[in-house]
Amino acid sequence: MARFKLTIEYDGTPFCGWQRQADRMSVQQALEEAIARFSGETVTTQAAGRTDAGVHALGQVAHFDLAKDWDPFRVREALNYHLKAYPVVVVEAEAVPETFEARFSATARHYEYRILNRRAPAAIERNQVWHVPVSLDAQRMHEAAQLILGKHDFSTFRSSECQANSPIRTLDVFEVAGDDEVIAITASARSFLHHQVRSMVGSLKLVGEGKWSPADFRAALDAADRKRCGAMAPAAGLFLTGVDYP
Amino acid sequence: MARFKLTIEYDGTPFCGWQRQADRMSVQQALEEAIARFSGETVTTQAAGRTDAGVHALGQVAHFDLAKDWDPFRVREALNYHLKAYPVVVVEAEAVPETFEARFSATARHYEYRILNRRAPAAIERNQVWHVPVSLDAQRMHEAAQLILGKHDFSTFRSSECQANSPIRTLDVFEVAGDDEVIAITASARSFLHHQVRSMVGSLKLVGEGKWSPADFRAALDAADRKRCGAMAPAAGLFLTGVDYP
Repeated sequence: MARFKLTIEYDGTPFCGWQRQADRMSVQQALEEAIARFSGETVTTQAAGRTDAGVHALGQVAHFDLAKDWDPFRVREALNYHLKAYPVVVVEAEAVPETFEARFSATARHYEYRILNRRAPAAIERNQVWHVPVSLDAQRMHEAAQLILGKHDFSTFRSSECQANSPIRTLDVFEVAGDDEVIAITASARSFLHHQVRSMVGSLKLVGEGKWSPADFRAALDAADRKRCGAMAPAAGLFLTGVDYP
Repeated sequence: MARFKLTIEYDGTPFCGWQRQADRMSVQQALEEAIARFSGETVTTQAAGRTDAGVHALGQVAHFDLAKDWDPFRVREALNYHLKAYPVVVVEAEAVPETFEARFSATARHYEYRILNRRAPAAIERNQVWHVPVSLDAQRMHEAAQLILGKHDFSTFRSSECQANSPIRTLDVFEVAGDDEVIAITASARSFLHHQVRSMVGSLKLVGEGKWSPADFRAALDAADRKRCGAMAPAAGLFLTGVDYP
């Protein structure tokens, strides 16, 4: 048996998310069908982050096993050939030991959220940004973001459907950088709760437009109450940019 | 009468180019229909650069006249509302004197060409890059580009269908910058011949992969012979990024 680690880039727009669903196309299904087509084997892939519908990835990581010991270069080439019908690309394929688990071995997950902050909507990156027409103060958003770094109960920023055992997470990086019309928000942690990044970004937007102070943002966290969360930011602006392993 | 200058962003993928055609949708037609819908007036717009099918714009400029003296802010908002069905956005609308001509008043046009230089194709920017899987030497391409700056007969890099009176142009900027997997090529001139940027980039690629020396690239220019041009780079990687006016 051979285990393979894939680094995957995809446009989440046409998918119901990473995870397989009975009635809609998922990134997982597209990938597993491509694996079956080149190898003849039916496998289940496991991903580091189960991105939601419309969320993109520049560096999703997944693993799977094959009976045959394929050359990883050929695995990548064959998968990209069979994935042509979808906006999914295998950027890298590596042979890894059987102890490697895309989900459980990960030591950090990195996300980027992109806001287009101008009056006019996006033409080219329509499905890759959140268009916010009211002017946002990126510096103030950054200040607020710094107030929630570290280990906390993130219940405020957690989907009611989140299946994690604990709402405690440690947020290592949460930065807001404004560059002309584009505001890029980066977030890194060992793991995130369901909808955590989009919930935090939706609340930060209230800080950016002056409806909340940075202290209000911190108070929302401390309340550990989902009802204190701002309206969640849309999926389109979110990218899983990378996953770290030991 | 009031004249308006528009700065326009578009994804060229679904269009037959800027210019109206009888049987296919153009950016010009999408825009003129949106103008008619909000103003009730049928106008002809004139653009600074008539981009080809599949070519994008971040800063195309066009002008048109209306009988009524609209507030430019309302013109932009109304156009973006009526353009929603298309990946075309008016980034800015300004009232300009009747002497302003988007095409003839322009003092410089700026283009960017993007190459994705890695083995794996693009997932998210599929229609916005030229995917070149063989490794290119961006520094060598940049050296070659510097050899054709200035005023020359650009017949080698000119479409056989080019309608310009003269093949003489002055190339002010032609730079190649490699950043990890993305090679960005910028070109600026008062005006360009038809297919000039894509022809120059297609030939530069031969330099990048070592098939031509920088001197070969210069020799191709000096030959002033279309047959000496490398295979033209595809439309998808090209962006009209801006147009200058006095």
